[in-house]
Amino acid sequence: MRISIDAMGGDFAPAEIVAGSLQAAEKLQGLEKLYLVGDESAIKAELAKHKGPVPSCIEIVHCSEVVGMGESPAVAIRRKKDSSITRSVELVRDGKADAVFSAGNTGAAVAAATLKLRTLKGVSRPAIATVMPTPNQPFVLLDAGANPDSTPEMIQQYAVMGTIYSREILGVENPSVGLLSIGEEAAKGNETTKKTFGLLEKSNLNFKGNVESRDLYGGKVSVAVCDGFVGNVVLKTSEAVASMIGNWLKDMFKRNIFRILGYFLARGVFKEMRKHADPHSYGGAPLLGANGVVIIGHGSSTAFATLNGIRVATEALDHDVNHLIEAELQSITTQS
Amino acid sequence: MRISIDAMGGDFAPAEIVAGSLQAAEKLQGLEKLYLVGDESAIKAELAKHKGPVPSCIEIVHCSEVVGMGESPAVAIRRKKDSSITRSVELVRDGKADAVFSAGNTGAAVAAATLKLRTLKGVSRPAIATVMPTPNQPFVLLDAGANPDSTPEMIQQYAVMGTIYSREILGVENPSVGLLSIGEEAAKGNETTKKTFGLLEKSNLNFKGNVESRDLYGGKVSVAVCDGFVGNVVLKTSEAVASMIGNWLKDMFKRNIFRILGYFLARGVFKEMRKHADPHSYGGAPLLGANGVVIIGHGSSTAFATLNGIRVATEALDHDVNHLIEAELQSITTQS
Repeated sequence: MRISIDAMGGDFAPAEIVAGSLQAAEKLQGLEKLYLVGDESAIKAELAKHKGPVPSCIEIVHCSEVVGMGESPAVAIRRKKDSSITRSVELVRDGKADAVFSAGNTGAAVAAATLKLRTLKGVSRPAIATVMPTPNQPFVLLDAGANPDSTPEMIQQYAVMGTIYSREILGVENPSVGLLSIGEEAAKGNETTKKTFGLLEKSNLNFKGNVESRDLYGGKVSVAVCDGFVGNVVLKTSEAVASMIGNWLKDMFKRNIFRILGYFLARGVFKEMRKHADPHSYGGAPLLGANGVVIIGHGSSTAFATLNGIRVATEALDHDVNHLIEAELQSITTQS
Repeated sequence: MRISIDAMGGDFAPAEIVAGSLQAAEKLQGLEKLYLVGDESAIKAELAKHKGPVPSCIEIVHCSEVVGMGESPAVAIRRKKDSSITRSVELVRDGKADAVFSAGNTGAAVAAATLKLRTLKGVSRPAIATVMPTPNQPFVLLDAGANPDSTPEMIQQYAVMGTIYSREILGVENPSVGLLSIGEEAAKGNETTKKTFGLLEKSNLNFKGNVESRDLYGGKVSVAVCDGFVGNVVLKTSEAVASMIGNWLKDMFKRNIFRILGYFLARGVFKEMRKHADPHSYGGAPLLGANGVVIIGHGSSTAFATLNGIRVATEALDHDVNHLIEAELQSITTQS
């Protein structure tokens, strides 16, 4: 497998991205090529920090531009023809790489993938599928932010793509699908969810009806689908509340000597919790529905996250998720 | 002040609602009348449990029906003419009460208020304003669920109503307003938020632009406005994540003797946290924009929550929030 890496994308690029790529080259099976796309001298400087020889599968592809985290994706992709994200995606388009990983500007990665790779047959727009940790089984949430104003038809496609991802990559048998809404009854929700409910009810998916946030974290479904604006709000609200509680606890445990001692005795709890909820261990969210394997890393991706992002890319290739999505969506089109 | 109480609404009605009303009658100043609306014999049975004489301001208004928590609000309000929520709201409409409190089916309370009381001049639809706790100052979130598919004009009205509520009731000087979106730049969001951004930018409100969930919990703004579907998702996701973390911690602290000891030493942390985040201490969310004071309690309202809900109603009356809203919206209409 040949993976192209946007070496300049992310808050800790290129250092952490290059370090994670080196780890991937050493640890993951079946990697023939890892293209590090970005400023050649910056990447070389990072590779020089590596102990031992640079693995032979690593190859630098120089480019002169970077899309910043705050830039408008559409404008950046149009104007910066030689940016690391555009060049990384082009390697996939040109058949030189099988998959791409970027922890840079998410909107720019989605725009580059949509423009350069186009979508799979039957897919209107690619969607970001995020694996969300819970105390028990994780669930897949999509769309987590690629498409605000998703139509019911698009959300139906997300349900098919999420089902295949959950089954093939997370190993869930006959994954159940919930439609994120604000009440369990079919009549609860907004215009989009009500129309989507009708489409999903008629589908051959394992559809469980409307679900609310507490159902998701309670493990009621394996796949939750929603509009991209709503999914992004769920993702960011979850992160914000968890981080607020974490900081608050940290502060409260310092207030007197008994609590400090208590924290010391129970510190394993917090260690386990951080490990369990660490977004870096999931590595990246696949952009499902693009005509090519595209993995989007968190902006704060570390070397560990990059390693895991590349692992996610190899798994998606191994399971040939894209062909399965096309076949499944083809059968929907034939039915209706 | 005369308050009508939907004595049958809520998971713990009528017991907790009646108990909370008795506490309010004893503790709150200026209550001339508390109407307990519902099944007379059930309410009498609860009053009989009270030690000492029933305060003279309490009066039972008998009705024969109850709207269940799972019922369709529109259908229930149309068919159940003699339900406790409808009768409670009618006391306000008929000038016999100044405000109403219900912890029952939220949709039914919104529907009854909208149909029977109508809206304030300049308000398209009343919105639920929820006070959200953070480690520092709370913020007001609206609409928290009354209106899925809110228009930009409706969200602009929410911003005016939230500003007045934050200033008058929470005592915030010149409250800042954020538009909940999925990125800080004006161009980020969906069609509704982009149009709303333009309206808020031109207004004379203290508008801070788009905000994300982490900004809310970080105390960036005093008022956050959004569509009712989105606001309800934020509310329920916050509750779900907080409760998941709480349960997970409880479980983890039981795993070995050191942790149990640690928990014992630091138990004050958890006590403070529960107290700080207790939704019952906020009592209820006002339905702003209805032509009358309507306070909506959490479905799980206890006596303590009921007491606080009645207190919120008296505060809204004291500050004459509704007249201020009408005056402020009048000035917007004149400007544009």
